[in-house]
Amino acid sequence: MKINHHYSELQDSYLFANIAQKVKVYQEAHPDQHMYRMGIGDVSLPLAPSVIAALHQGVDDQAHQETFHGYLPEVGYQPLREAIQNEYAAQGIDLDVNDIFVSSGASDELGDILHLFDRDAVVMIMEPAYPAYVDANVMDGRKIIHYDGGVLPKPDPDLHPDLIYICSPNNPTGSVMTREVLKEWVDFANATDAVIIFDAAYKAFIEEDLPKSIFEIEGAKTCAIEICSFSKTAGFTGTRLGYTIVPHELVREDMVLHDMWVRNRTTRTNGVSYIIQRGAMAIFTEQGKKEWQANIAVYKQNAKYLMAALDEVGITYVGGKNAPYIWLDCPNGMTGWEFFDYLLNEVQIIGTPGEGFGACGEHNFRLSCFGDPEDTKEAGRRLVALLKK
Amino acid sequence: MKINHHYSELQDSYLFANIAQKVKVYQEAHPDQHMYRMGIGDVSLPLAPSVIAALHQGVDDQAHQETFHGYLPEVGYQPLREAIQNEYAAQGIDLDVNDIFVSSGASDELGDILHLFDRDAVVMIMEPAYPAYVDANVMDGRKIIHYDGGVLPKPDPDLHPDLIYICSPNNPTGSVMTREVLKEWVDFANATDAVIIFDAAYKAFIEEDLPKSIFEIEGAKTCAIEICSFSKTAGFTGTRLGYTIVPHELVREDMVLHDMWVRNRTTRTNGVSYIIQRGAMAIFTEQGKKEWQANIAVYKQNAKYLMAALDEVGITYVGGKNAPYIWLDCPNGMTGWEFFDYLLNEVQIIGTPGEGFGACGEHNFRLSCFGDPEDTKEAGRRLVALLKK
Repeated sequence: MKINHHYSELQDSYLFANIAQKVKVYQEAHPDQHMYRMGIGDVSLPLAPSVIAALHQGVDDQAHQETFHGYLPEVGYQPLREAIQNEYAAQGIDLDVNDIFVSSGASDELGDILHLFDRDAVVMIMEPAYPAYVDANVMDGRKIIHYDGGVLPKPDPDLHPDLIYICSPNNPTGSVMTREVLKEWVDFANATDAVIIFDAAYKAFIEEDLPKSIFEIEGAKTCAIEICSFSKTAGFTGTRLGYTIVPHELVREDMVLHDMWVRNRTTRTNGVSYIIQRGAMAIFTEQGKKEWQANIAVYKQNAKYLMAALDEVGITYVGGKNAPYIWLDCPNGMTGWEFFDYLLNEVQIIGTPGEGFGACGEHNFRLSCFGDPEDTKEAGRRLVALLKK
Repeated sequence: MKINHHYSELQDSYLFANIAQKVKVYQEAHPDQHMYRMGIGDVSLPLAPSVIAALHQGVDDQAHQETFHGYLPEVGYQPLREAIQNEYAAQGIDLDVNDIFVSSGASDELGDILHLFDRDAVVMIMEPAYPAYVDANVMDGRKIIHYDGGVLPKPDPDLHPDLIYICSPNNPTGSVMTREVLKEWVDFANATDAVIIFDAAYKAFIEEDLPKSIFEIEGAKTCAIEICSFSKTAGFTGTRLGYTIVPHELVREDMVLHDMWVRNRTTRTNGVSYIIQRGAMAIFTEQGKKEWQANIAVYKQNAKYLMAALDEVGITYVGGKNAPYIWLDCPNGMTGWEFFDYLLNEVQIIGTPGEGFGACGEHNFRLSCFGDPEDTKEAGRRLVALLKK
């Protein structure tokens, strides 16, 4: 029997599992303490009323023979694909509806999409980065270039990756690629035959004039796959849905990646639940949009509480404006894990140590703005009280 | 750029896509003809009322802060895992709840689970077989042994696969492994360090005293993974849910496959929708069970209509009793595709040509019992009228 031995090359345990374990130990020792959860990027507000109504409609459709849906197209429910296409068109991006693939969410797609590429392909991951980028490729046995390019990394002409991950707005730094820098990456990928995997999970947080999609950039259709999620847009972390754009213009080694992905999906999945896809259609209605945008405004207010606290104690940070994350420099030369323990033990704030996002994050720390507003406000106060000492 | 070139080794197009295309052409030429759909294994009855009520409950939970679910455990919602565990316990099978992984359905798992195995592992597929078994492995570049062992295949001591697919009740033959033959496979796998992937998607159709789970067989926990689905049990083809059992006793090359799968899931997915998992819990209530069993009784009556017709015209077949499929010998030496065209053109019945399940099915044909009852009854009449000529 031949096992996939690359699993043994993975680091011992996954970042968020480690954090959960530390929190569990603390809570068992201090059962009465309230915890201020600014760690994992999980939303705290319920789904928008329009989405709830559409989900109920989807359930009712499954109750009656005339409206019942069995197998749907593996690539997605056509009306939802069209709603996504229209949303891009409204932003001036012309997409072929067949290039839009509905998915169970970005997390699933980021692993699954790798199947299109050879295991000898070389991957560039700009760090700090979402740790699953690394782990999914380690499991496949791919060589990884850990690229520490700073907050707004640019291509290095001496490095020749086959696959390039770009996450914008970035997890964990909260920074957003400008059109100019993104254009450099698109040109670099086209010139070197690389493929960009563009993770746009946090695009709903962009408020300045910055690109929400890589397909705003000329030339992207011949070099990029865009992976999107409703998790952070519409609070779908536990409801699960997303979509992926694989342009039919993207060709490498004479193979059309779009056609490969169709074949992958029709062979390896039976698609996403009708009920959830029906529910997600409400995300694109005028009323639905108002509702989820109101939730995003709450998370943005959370960011303001935390940024104000950090400003007050003189801690430097990036993010928090066009993104739901704040990436800060740990005070007093502490490492991320040291600062994690310090905050947990002193003020019961749970954040995420920078080390979890790559070696270059050793002295950084991520705060998430998805927590409960009252908790976040109080966390701001506690940060100030603790760090002013 | 290095692409996964194994995609170019796939046969041109997927079976059911080919059928859909032929049907489309026929319908465009004959727009007024009613079609009798006995092809694809898709259910036609709506979801059970108890499941509908539980799905609505799941949606309502997502509408309120106090009951809202964000990220769930990637391995599944614990109450659902426990309901599955209890169901096995009631059948005399003792499972560790941690060995049960909730999934988006069998189709997704059958591809995803392959990630645990090296691409040099040799796969045995007993044909006729569900074509995605072959395609998923071709895409991974694995060597495939196409094993034509007849309706109830036994191990061949001269063949040494690493991975062995067993589908029971079988798609497409409708036959079910006896305990004796399944024990031979379990012993063979344990003796040769192979792993069995046991596809139990159709187990709800078993009415005789035959194994519904490979874990009824002594020794299976050290050699088998069981993949289950609610698609055919509870009509979830468009609702999407299933589960996979990876026993912690299953160890190969010193690696614990259960732990690898936990790592795979926590890295490569964020789990399945809370709403759908909440809905699936009703499958295990007393009332829910009554309701979906009533639907299965309808499909079993469909099988009786078709078997009576085949008996009347003297066509030999297997299946139809403990399974929703009938696997017949084409009359007059026709191939499966010839019989497909004949039935489509003469009596507008859509079935599935045996060739789609492997070379050994060249002169066979699959009829599905999931169609509309009135349509299936009429299809029986049409078969008799056509083949008695």
